[in-house]
Amino acid sequence: MNQIQQQQLIDAIHTIPDYPVKGIMFRDVTSLLENPQAFALTIELLVQAYKDKGFTKVVGTEARGFLFGAPLALALNIGFIPVRKPGKLPRDTHSQAYTLEYGEDILEIHQDALTENDKVLIIDDLLATGGTIEATTKLIRRLGAEVSDAGFVISLPDLGGEKRLTALNITPYSLIQYQGE
Amino acid sequence: MNQIQQQQLIDAIHTIPDYPVKGIMFRDVTSLLENPQAFALTIELLVQAYKDKGFTKVVGTEARGFLFGAPLALALNIGFIPVRKPGKLPRDTHSQAYTLEYGEDILEIHQDALTENDKVLIIDDLLATGGTIEATTKLIRRLGAEVSDAGFVISLPDLGGEKRLTALNITPYSLIQYQGE
Repeated sequence: MNQIQQQQLIDAIHTIPDYPVKGIMFRDVTSLLENPQAFALTIELLVQAYKDKGFTKVVGTEARGFLFGAPLALALNIGFIPVRKPGKLPRDTHSQAYTLEYGEDILEIHQDALTENDKVLIIDDLLATGGTIEATTKLIRRLGAEVSDAGFVISLPDLGGEKRLTALNITPYSLIQYQGE
Repeated sequence: MNQIQQQQLIDAIHTIPDYPVKGIMFRDVTSLLENPQAFALTIELLVQAYKDKGFTKVVGTEARGFLFGAPLALALNIGFIPVRKPGKLPRDTHSQAYTLEYGEDILEIHQDALTENDKVLIIDDLLATGGTIEATTKLIRRLGAEVSDAGFVISLPDLGGEKRLTALNITPYSLIQYQGE
């Protein structure tokens, strides 16, 4: 990625101050989706990062992970597997709880979505603390599949997600990083 | 769409009997997403239906509408606008309530997502009763934008969605129809 491309993405990601609570600078990927050049560039940069690496499936987490994971899977010509909130997937599922700032949530994956022959790429819009990605990693590994990479449009390194994923033997990669938040 | 293509999609969409409740034949688009040839064909058939028609934005509804709407917007080289559940969009929103089988739900759109210069294509995975698409249509029209088309991977004509959308001056189009349910 060159500097012009990086600036194009930064310009397309608007910042909403004090959302969802005072003091948070919210990085809004919906403004990037509205901009077809920036959205296409995002997918192209992820393709460049992950093509020819032998991935067999992209896994994306409800709901914003769908927005980038599904187009990337299409571009890489591999299948897309959704990880969803409880009760949304129709076939038999495995569940994984994870901790939020206040309370707990659960993610699910279809039990037959992956096998030990799969090499999985996790895609999400933004890496913050890494809680949902840790839960997603556990679901993927419970199915016997290999996973060692997770790609993001944005990361907020000060929130510790990179370290948390590295400790899980997941290599994080993000197109844009916002420090100091 | 030729018969071979149609059969390829039908083969890729698995049916889960008695989900979410007894007597319902659930058409599972996640099995289509897992199949890269079928997923690519789905997007290609939607491109053929909607290219060169002057659309300026694709609107997709959380969460399965994201899976088809975002790739289609990319392929048409136009922006993607998400319609989401309450509290998920960071900028100022308009809200629209709609009726579910039991109770009511609400959808939201960013107030600045569309203008009167936009010609919008709605995309979702499945047309059943059309309740979410009616709510989405109202949100789009409240912003002054034009909308007269909605595209689906699947429709269940017996549930009345086509008639409901036609009454709203929306032309529905679906790749696969399942009658008698």
